[in-house]
Amino acid sequence: MAAAHTVAPSAPSSVSLGPAVALSCRECGERVPLGPVFACASCFGPLETAYRFPDEDPQALRRRIEAGPASIWRYAPLLPVPADVADRPNLNPGFTKLVRAGNLARELGVTGGLFIKDDSGNPTHSFKDRVVAIAVEAARAFGFTTLSCSSTGNLAGAVGAAAARAGLRSCVFIPHDLEAGKVVMAAVYGGDLVGIEGSYDDVNRFCSELIGDPLGEGWGFVNVNLRPYYAEGSKTLAYEICEQLGWQLPDQIVVPIASGSQLTKIDKGLRELIALGLVEDRPYRIFGAQAEGCSPVSRAFKDGHDVVRPVRPDTIAKSLAIGNPADGPYVLDIARRTGGAVEDVTDPEITDAIRLLARTEGIFAETAGGVTVGVTRKLIAFGQLDPSLTTVVLNTGDGLKTLDAVAGGPTVVIRPSLEAFRAVEL
Amino acid sequence: MAAAHTVAPSAPSSVSLGPAVALSCRECGERVPLGPVFACASCFGPLETAYRFPDEDPQALRRRIEAGPASIWRYAPLLPVPADVADRPNLNPGFTKLVRAGNLARELGVTGGLFIKDDSGNPTHSFKDRVVAIAVEAARAFGFTTLSCSSTGNLAGAVGAAAARAGLRSCVFIPHDLEAGKVVMAAVYGGDLVGIEGSYDDVNRFCSELIGDPLGEGWGFVNVNLRPYYAEGSKTLAYEICEQLGWQLPDQIVVPIASGSQLTKIDKGLRELIALGLVEDRPYRIFGAQAEGCSPVSRAFKDGHDVVRPVRPDTIAKSLAIGNPADGPYVLDIARRTGGAVEDVTDPEITDAIRLLARTEGIFAETAGGVTVGVTRKLIAFGQLDPSLTTVVLNTGDGLKTLDAVAGGPTVVIRPSLEAFRAVEL
Repeated sequence: MAAAHTVAPSAPSSVSLGPAVALSCRECGERVPLGPVFACASCFGPLETAYRFPDEDPQALRRRIEAGPASIWRYAPLLPVPADVADRPNLNPGFTKLVRAGNLARELGVTGGLFIKDDSGNPTHSFKDRVVAIAVEAARAFGFTTLSCSSTGNLAGAVGAAAARAGLRSCVFIPHDLEAGKVVMAAVYGGDLVGIEGSYDDVNRFCSELIGDPLGEGWGFVNVNLRPYYAEGSKTLAYEICEQLGWQLPDQIVVPIASGSQLTKIDKGLRELIALGLVEDRPYRIFGAQAEGCSPVSRAFKDGHDVVRPVRPDTIAKSLAIGNPADGPYVLDIARRTGGAVEDVTDPEITDAIRLLARTEGIFAETAGGVTVGVTRKLIAFGQLDPSLTTVVLNTGDGLKTLDAVAGGPTVVIRPSLEAFRAVEL
Repeated sequence: MAAAHTVAPSAPSSVSLGPAVALSCRECGERVPLGPVFACASCFGPLETAYRFPDEDPQALRRRIEAGPASIWRYAPLLPVPADVADRPNLNPGFTKLVRAGNLARELGVTGGLFIKDDSGNPTHSFKDRVVAIAVEAARAFGFTTLSCSSTGNLAGAVGAAAARAGLRSCVFIPHDLEAGKVVMAAVYGGDLVGIEGSYDDVNRFCSELIGDPLGEGWGFVNVNLRPYYAEGSKTLAYEICEQLGWQLPDQIVVPIASGSQLTKIDKGLRELIALGLVEDRPYRIFGAQAEGCSPVSRAFKDGHDVVRPVRPDTIAKSLAIGNPADGPYVLDIARRTGGAVEDVTDPEITDAIRLLARTEGIFAETAGGVTVGVTRKLIAFGQLDPSLTTVVLNTGDGLKTLDAVAGGPTVVIRPSLEAFRAVEL
């Protein structure tokens, strides 16, 4: 990233994003005003949103949240969004089901309560709707008129849909050789969709160049110059899980790792709930899940390293295929601090876990959900995940978007006659 | 249908399905005990569920509903399900978003408030989860161990998923030449999936034979011998729309027509809310929407006929492609009684309407949603739908399942350079 993007731009001097008061550097702690910046001017560390939270009795705050809308906006007092966010045209994502997975628990031998946080219930059927919804509010606050991103699929659909509802223009950049299904969904919302001849990394680099160019003026790139806001959307997964467990922390939580941002923000969300007195402070363990074909964080965890060595991804779990995960080191910190772990599964194990979840709970997950369920099974077998404790496993996407992973046909094909059916062994 | 299926079977003598007390014939009014039967033994008319509803102050009942779960089970007091239904393992469908469609309203010139009831938010992304969830409870009550159906797609997925969660076996019958995506989803839940060499009508006929055969013993066919319960699930669309409008009837509602069951049950639901005092009694209009390539009800409506002449379907709206809709005559009654209409749109109009809804509201509908949005636009143009009144349009499915309808690619493909992007005109 070029140094030019690390200085504060000419953003409105007083931006109203609810309890957000500044951006602060995760590395050196330096604070800068709210604006479309993402890297610290002093040390180049990542900027994240800093808050002044309501000084409110926890019981009163819980009641206020519970009386709110059935979306992430019930947590508006804890997010970088204006107080009236629920009245603005947006996709109102979140507050997805926390499914008690009794059948799966029996198969895996989990006795302490097993839950799937099923984010396929979001408007475009992935958790990306959460982060994009926050980015939309930041884009509005900073006066951006075009919403943009680089994407390999889920994010493209989420940005296209969110921009359409919000009345913003969208221009999304994707590798030119994406699966047809993802391309159709990304295109249907009517924004501009630009195919780039190159890999996802090439698309990313191109977007970084575009931000510094006059061509990109007025453009909010949700996962680049709006990233400090965007990333906060993942905190809502932590909030919802705790509220849905009756304002309790889960003992164990299994989270997929792409850039690692989601896992670090879930940890941030849990710590905020503790600090605010909304849940009782007790230990929790966070586990990270990767595909073996893109497992740099898992490898570093197992090798006891603090540094994550980039890899070239080769896995069916394309939504997790980031070879150089920006938040990898933070993930390692969190897994070690909380007594969790990072583990990976092979592509066949991913497919098998997708089928297991579908067969036991009627949830058709995308490959990322196969990764978390598969890793959960492995962690139990290795004795790293305690089956007697309450465990929450994230499914962040929808099987309809990754059909190839489980391609299959009818058990049998017959003529429409009882005789033909009688001859079949099912 | 054979007469053998019209007599009451050896069902448990006292079945507990909440407020449901009997089945009654829609034609002659004859009552029979609750059981897995679907046609009147006297006149062969369709049986439907009859209730004894709670004698409760409307305000108290509203509060009880509002305090219930965020699923169709909040209306358990008005459905043929046990009182503890929410505690049983099931998919908890419903309470999907009622989206205020401000952008679409501006494009269509609707000033009275335009809403999309977006059932793509259900667990398997179609309204079928509602009806199947009710059928699962009936299947349990009657001691069935296998859940079955004939389907062209959405229902197959809904039955497979619901059976998996409920711990029932499933065996689903589909035409052997369905689109790959629908087959993959139907197969992933691990039940038996049987391809039938023939059309959907052949599959249906085969299922009717199977019910009368020992091979089908212990099988609940959700849309055949469990149909009187199954169909009631569509009432919840009416309940939710009114509750989400602040316990008000919509002035106008646009509903897709396949068998016509959904539209008749929505009307039933609205009348129940009026009878129970949950909404104020005032006129409402119900409009039916078909694809031109399968528009027998629309034709009968326009021709002033009471009888619906079967057609051979030929449309991209496959989930609505029922050429001989069983509830067609009831639909005609309701459209005429309420001052509504039945209209149809061509396949290109369907595709265009899918894109319109996506572009304005960020909702990616399946072809059935293109039909309702397209018909709404047409009804406004023809002066049959009053744009100054509150209007609710149903989207009953998900665009990810009918990608071919809107196949498209990137606006442009370029090399990853600013020069290349500068040369593009977007």
